[in-house]
Amino acid sequence: MCQLFGMSSRLPTNVTFSLKVFSDRGGKTGPHGDGWGIAYHEGRDFRIIKEAAPAFNSACLRFVESHDLSSEIVISHIRRATAPASLSYANTHPFVRELYGYAHVFAHNGDIPGIFEDRRFEPSFYSPLGDTDSEKAFCLLMDRLRNKLSRETVLDLSRKLPVIQSWAEEVSAFGIFNFLFSDTEFLYAHRSTRLFYVSRECLSASECLRSEELTIRLAEPRSESQRLALVATEPLTSNEEWVSLPAGEVVVFRKGSKTE
Amino acid sequence: MCQLFGMSSRLPTNVTFSLKVFSDRGGKTGPHGDGWGIAYHEGRDFRIIKEAAPAFNSACLRFVESHDLSSEIVISHIRRATAPASLSYANTHPFVRELYGYAHVFAHNGDIPGIFEDRRFEPSFYSPLGDTDSEKAFCLLMDRLRNKLSRETVLDLSRKLPVIQSWAEEVSAFGIFNFLFSDTEFLYAHRSTRLFYVSRECLSASECLRSEELTIRLAEPRSESQRLALVATEPLTSNEEWVSLPAGEVVVFRKGSKTE
Repeated sequence: MCQLFGMSSRLPTNVTFSLKVFSDRGGKTGPHGDGWGIAYHEGRDFRIIKEAAPAFNSACLRFVESHDLSSEIVISHIRRATAPASLSYANTHPFVRELYGYAHVFAHNGDIPGIFEDRRFEPSFYSPLGDTDSEKAFCLLMDRLRNKLSRETVLDLSRKLPVIQSWAEEVSAFGIFNFLFSDTEFLYAHRSTRLFYVSRECLSASECLRSEELTIRLAEPRSESQRLALVATEPLTSNEEWVSLPAGEVVVFRKGSKTE
Repeated sequence: MCQLFGMSSRLPTNVTFSLKVFSDRGGKTGPHGDGWGIAYHEGRDFRIIKEAAPAFNSACLRFVESHDLSSEIVISHIRRATAPASLSYANTHPFVRELYGYAHVFAHNGDIPGIFEDRRFEPSFYSPLGDTDSEKAFCLLMDRLRNKLSRETVLDLSRKLPVIQSWAEEVSAFGIFNFLFSDTEFLYAHRSTRLFYVSRECLSASECLRSEELTIRLAEPRSESQRLALVATEPLTSNEEWVSLPAGEVVVFRKGSKTE
């Protein structure tokens, strides 16, 4: 089971993550096949903190929990692997590549093993650093964006979105393909099986978002004009309606709002 | 003043960094223009932890100080900027790009501002995420390596080193160009003005390396066959001879030894 979380906000928001200590599993069968990662947008780059190690024993996670980083776009991925195979830093989401001077990040929930067998899906410019199906799919997208866009159009949504949409449809044929993607300007979300979002004007106070595995604290807004969009595998609050993303459609968020 | 540190070791070594709290400067004139970053080789990727913020006030650094990460290649960069300009995550060393499935990292000490004015030095495939002369030079190297090498020869030193050497000579014409570079297999070091190294069979016990700004603790070797090469802007121990790298020559280390 993997869990995705994404945030897009009009103004920088302090986001603090806490992962549940897996006390129901810890200590019984030794280290688990868990990994987690968080990408925080900063300028044309993303600060990425990730770890292939179990969350319950992570000094790196304790750092993240004790420190709130301010950003307008955040993508996080928590992995609960059922098998211990392929646990490495390079196999941990989110993945990042640079295109035309903008970092692009990607995190995926699901399995698309068939992508390894289809010769049409062989990236050429960008190559995986690890051996996940997810990173291979991401490299393929980055290849296509490089081919279809230019330095001038790299953030042109009218040209970029069709490339992402078409790629999402093709890769979805291989299995479950829920993902979050960002180019520092837009947050792109795609539901294959399960992904929800909520968008709202302003939080009244510091707020906690919770799921079984994850608690996210958002700082109190410093301005009335704050606006947030949140995307997650499971609804993280109970007092508002989380809307299921339309299956098979890449939805775009910018500065806290869903674009039409 | 910037400080470079690099390590190449035969077996994975636990490396713990401590940066001196800048107490002689802290609190007098407010936050300083300092940044720091560390890259730890892991598989075909590098774990990069970096921050544009002053070290004396860094939760991220406290994490690094309290946690030893094991690696065979480490590159670190500490910046003491004299001007507060251009402090951002994207402008903080080390920089990273992927080429043919291998992460490549780069950290630079010096100034090469003329690189912004020379049209011959315009990278095409890789683009800077920030606005430093260092990252631009790095992108240029990555462009050339992409053009001269292939997926099969990306770690072929006999083909790769001449590209790096030629690039280092050209870029050195713009100013001071001490750097460390790695492709997960080799550690490349280039002295323009100041860079030392030491190579040795084995440490007798846990050891501290010190400079004015930096303390590095290396774990006790778990095997007799351990071998380490250390490269730094300033000699970090007093009981052994640190050798100045030959000016203008790219020196290569692999598995703890200087290659001939």
